[in-house]
Amino acid sequence: MKISTRNIFSGTVSLLTPGAVNAEVEVTTAGGDKIVAIVTESSVKSLGLAPGKPVQAFVKAPWVVLLTGTADVRFSARNQYQGKVAKVSKGAVNAEVTLELAGGSLIQAIVTNESLQEMGLAPGVAATALIKASHVILGVAI
Amino acid sequence: MKISTRNIFSGTVSLLTPGAVNAEVEVTTAGGDKIVAIVTESSVKSLGLAPGKPVQAFVKAPWVVLLTGTADVRFSARNQYQGKVAKVSKGAVNAEVTLELAGGSLIQAIVTNESLQEMGLAPGVAATALIKASHVILGVAI
Amino acid sequence: MKISTRNIFSGTVSLLTPGAVNAEVEVTTAGGDKIVAIVTESSVKSLGLAPGKPVQAFVKAPWVVLLTGTADVRFSARNQYQGKVAKVSKGAVNAEVTLELAGGSLIQAIVTNESLQEMGLAPGVAATALIKASHVILGVAI
Repeated sequence: MKISTRNIFSGTVSLLTPGAVNAEVEVTTAGGDKIVAIVTESSVKSLGLAPGKPVQAFVKAPWVVLLTGTADVRFSARNQYQGKVAKVSKGAVNAEVTLELAGGSLIQAIVTNESLQEMGLAPGVAATALIKASHVILGVAI
Repeated sequence: MKISTRNIFSGTVSLLTPGAVNAEVEVTTAGGDKIVAIVTESSVKSLGLAPGKPVQAFVKAPWVVLLTGTADVRFSARNQYQGKVAKVSKGAVNAEVTLELAGGSLIQAIVTNESLQEMGLAPGVAATALIKASHVILGVAI
Repeated sequence: MKISTRNIFSGTVSLLTPGAVNAEVEVTTAGGDKIVAIVTESSVKSLGLAPGKPVQAFVKAPWVVLLTGTADVRFSARNQYQGKVAKVSKGAVNAEVTLELAGGSLIQAIVTNESLQEMGLAPGVAATALIKASHVILGVAI
């Protein structure tokens, strides 16, 4: 299977908080990174999600927010990853920015060209990627 | 009214699961396709959502994930539609992919050019569209 | 700190509805505009969200839906803002549309070129921006 989400995290479920409609699922990767997803309770059942279950987390590039500069704001986005810009591909309206984390993982974000310019996003610049838990899709091998 | 979401499903509410903050709403189209949305309980009340109520479901193209190849992963995304690529429009960074379902419905997705290439997305290729329930907006006629 | 979300609302928490997994947070700006966000209960705790707390709400441009024409549909999207198109920047696939609200605030949306054409989006045209509550990220100053 090939998927159009540019960001894929492989790990195991480390925490599961149930709700009436939605559940919060924390996934921990082999390298120790964590990613939190909000999925429906129906998905928890159909995927058999439970602590220890191997899963993949998928995030599309337009759902990734980038930050640069001093960390003077705390965000509700549950997933936050610090790294350095590795590559920028500029289009007419949008640009694709690849962030390399300390452990070597890559995160790809689509931002507008205005953001690119205002934030000074260029190879080598330190940046943080934010991903809202409700924007994460989980998958389990069949 | 005209709306910028490229994907519109018309149907009636077939199932409603309430929660404290969010509710899960299943919509079934005239052709029998289903689309599940997560909306707030406030919206359930203000829109008068209940089984049998005619509604439209709206999804923006950048929120649609595409899959190709063997179905070896089960996903938490509640909405999954199989079809064939009907058209590809390529930009500098992103491409717009139109998927035609068996019943003739069209689903439009925006993916990066890298995904387009890696996945071999081209007219005639079989692909599946994934849409997360929390990315579906519902509307009712006034 | 600089952030890649094109839309930023500054205000204070005016209402907080708790749930098992998610909470609904209403933010009111100095100008009286409201924006509703769905965030996890963990974020409510870690950010210390409570009525009166100053916060910022962040929304990426690809998460904004635009409407034109007669208001003949009521939407589940909790955040709806009426304004006029101030600027359009067209790319190969997508266009960036800037909407100016009555109070002078700007909202930026990314739509496909097909939507741009079909909806007749051009400077001066009246339009409404829809933002789903689950697509809003909240931030508090540290």
